[in-house]
This record gives sequence, C-alpha cells and structure tokens, in this order.
Amino acid sequence: MKINVVENVLKANDAVAAANRRMLSDRRLLAVNLMSAPGSGKTTLLEKTIPALGEEYPCGVMVGDLQTTRDAERLGPYAVTTTQINTGTGCHLSATQVAEALPAFDLDRLAFLFIENVGNMVCPAQFDLGEHVKAILLSIPEGDDKVAKYPTLFQQADVVLLTKVDLLGILDYDLNRVRDDLARINTRAPFIQLSSKTGQGFDQWLAWLKQQRLEHTRA
Amino acid sequence: MKINVVENVLKANDAVAAANRRMLSDRRLLAVNLMSAPGSGKTTLLEKTIPALGEEYPCGVMVGDLQTTRDAERLGPYAVTTTQINTGTGCHLSATQVAEALPAFDLDRLAFLFIENVGNMVCPAQFDLGEHVKAILLSIPEGDDKVAKYPTLFQQADVVLLTKVDLLGILDYDLNRVRDDLARINTRAPFIQLSSKTGQGFDQWLAWLKQQRLEHTRA
Repeated sequence: MKINVVENVLKANDAVAAANRRMLSDRRLLAVNLMSAPGSGKTTLLEKTIPALGEEYPCGVMVGDLQTTRDAERLGPYAVTTTQINTGTGCHLSATQVAEALPAFDLDRLAFLFIENVGNMVCPAQFDLGEHVKAILLSIPEGDDKVAKYPTLFQQADVVLLTKVDLLGILDYDLNRVRDDLARINTRAPFIQLSSKTGQGFDQWLAWLKQQRLEHTRA
Repeated sequence: MKINVVENVLKANDAVAAANRRMLSDRRLLAVNLMSAPGSGKTTLLEKTIPALGEEYPCGVMVGDLQTTRDAERLGPYAVTTTQINTGTGCHLSATQVAEALPAFDLDRLAFLFIENVGNMVCPAQFDLGEHVKAILLSIPEGDDKVAKYPTLFQQADVVLLTKVDLLGILDYDLNRVRDDLARINTRAPFIQLSSKTGQGFDQWLAWLKQQRLEHTRA
C-alpha cells in the first residue's frame, strides 16, 4: 500500500509537470530547475545571471525554502517577478506548487523562469516540476566526492555547474576525480566551472542558457 | 490515507529507535547522530575526533550514503568497527537500518557510536535513530543564512558545530547573524566553532561528548 501511494503521488506530479511545461514552451519561456546542496551558491548565481542576461531576456524566479523569504528578497531587485514558496517541512518543490505560483507571473513577457529548488541533493531529483532543463550545482567546499555519493541527482543533470572555483587554490580539491565520476554516470551534461565572484565561466553558462531556450521552446 | 501511512511509518520508526537507545544506554555507549548538508565536514570531523578520544574511548561508526563506501573507507582506520549503510535513493537513515547494523558491533567494548546521517538538512531531522544526542554541523562556506532556512533541523540540535572556521577570514560570514537566528529557535544547544584543519574548538567538543556520555548512559 505504501508503494502505491508513493507511485500515485509521483504520477499526479508528472501530469501537472507536463502541463506546466507545455504552457511555458508555448510562450518561448525556458524553465530551469536549479538543484544542489544548501549553500552551493544557487541564489548568488542568479544574482549574477539575471543582470548578465540583460533586458533582452527578462527573467522570473521561484524560490523554494522551508522557511524565510530571504532568497526572494535577494533576487527581487533583479527579476521581473519573484515568488518565494515556503515548503514548511517539505524537502523539495512539486509540480503543483509551481502550477499554483505561475499565475503571479506575466509569462508572455519572460524569456527565462528560474526555479531554485530546496537545498537538498536527494529528494528534489525525484520530482519533475515542468522545467525544460535541470542545472545541478556543486561547490568546491563541498568536496570532490559528491557526484559519486549522490548519483541520482547528477544522472539527471542537463548541465553541471561547479561553483566557487575561485576557492580551487585554497582548498584541496581533485577536479579529475569529479570529471571521472561524472563520466561514469552522465556523458550528456556539459561541465562548467563557475565563479560568481570573479565571473569565470559565465560566458559559457549564458550561451548554454540561450541555446537551450532555442531548442526547447517554440518560436 | 497518505497521512496515515506516513504517521504509521514514523510510529514504527520511533518504537525501534527507543529499543536501540535502551540497548546502547545499558552498555554505557553514547550514540551521536551527526546531521548536516553534504560536504559540511562530518567525515573529516570524525577522522579527527576518534583518534583524539583515544584508547580510553573506543568508537564505532555507522555511515549513511546513497551510494559508495568512501566514507567508511576513510573512517575504517580509526574506528573499532565501521559500517556503511547505502540507502539507494533514501534521503535519511531510519531506526530500522541502525537496528540491522548494530549486530556487527561489539557494543560492550565501545564508548561512543557515531552515526553519520545522509547529507541532507531536511529529511533526517524527522527520524529518531535511537541516538542520545543530535550534533548538527554547519560549515562556513554554506553561508550564514542556513539556521533560519532549515529551522526544523536546528531546533532539534543538542549541539551546533560551526565547521571550517579556518575559512572565516577568507569568506564573507556574519557570525552574529547565525547566533541571533539560533537564539530564536534553540537556546539549549551549545554553539562550538570548530576547525578540523587547525584543531580549534576540539577541546570543547571532546569535553561535551564525554559529559553527554555521563549524563545519558548508565554506570
């Protein structure tokens, strides 16, 4: 019985996710689901990404957290619309939460919708939100063993962003180990080394975003 | 129906947890449930803590990860017995997993059992494993907003360990913000600033562990 309940929850989620995705694709709006451990730099990445995309690419943001509106407050100045979803004790966002938040956005005006998931490397991986692409962040201070230890997340990545690379000289970190672990489970996702502090890697990340929008949405 | 299933799972877990705790208390063995985000330094902390406790306090370790035995391999040289629990897609350890792992340990010989939970700031907080105390780690690179964003975890802390404090001069970090957030939700847990690299804070942490063992187990 327990398994049936879980399966039904996932099936219901997937149906809502598909409807979300259809609605966004029709408006040429690329939805990006950002997932990572707490403190990998998802909010900081968006603080830099949205201004760098510029007026040509207006952005909306949904932010998932158990409590507080701190992330939404940080991103408010940059995005056209920012919505904080507080999950209480919930460990991930769901497609229904996204569907309920969508009416607050002027979808026809936006080019990108960034969905910052709850900081968690396990549960968010199981829930399709209706995004077009999944961006998985991994920060240098977390250590070089995380791809192997959380494979379900990294298997699904459409892009892997190695963040805080300005700390590479300060902390012990074996880049080749991460590349090798990733090569074993995901050969599809580009691996971009980023620093929101120095700007390293942003050209590649922004180009990737724009290309994904062309591929996944309708003219 | 869904809620009933979840409640039954939690009730069953709590009964097993209580049995685990009784068995450990009777043997003067303090069980410590270590919880944090991925990469906060749980394994590194244990690599330093177990030798520092010395022969007088033999330690056992259980390590929870989705995949790999990397943490157990790291801790094997230090602990009397080390067991890796692979959860597959499971986002937390459960009391049953701990109960099933216990027979591998010579409980009469041990003073401490460290249970390193799956790296996750949400789900592990809901599952009593039968531990006596919960140690919550929070590392400097994760940022100073995590106590407010993950209150369910920090509310339960018996001790909060701020790790990687050797990075305090290098990264922006507002210690007072963390202290203020913590003061609002948990006035009970001591707040210890630790560096596994420099040894800062270890005297306080080791003294705390020994005191907890006296308080929670029977002579």
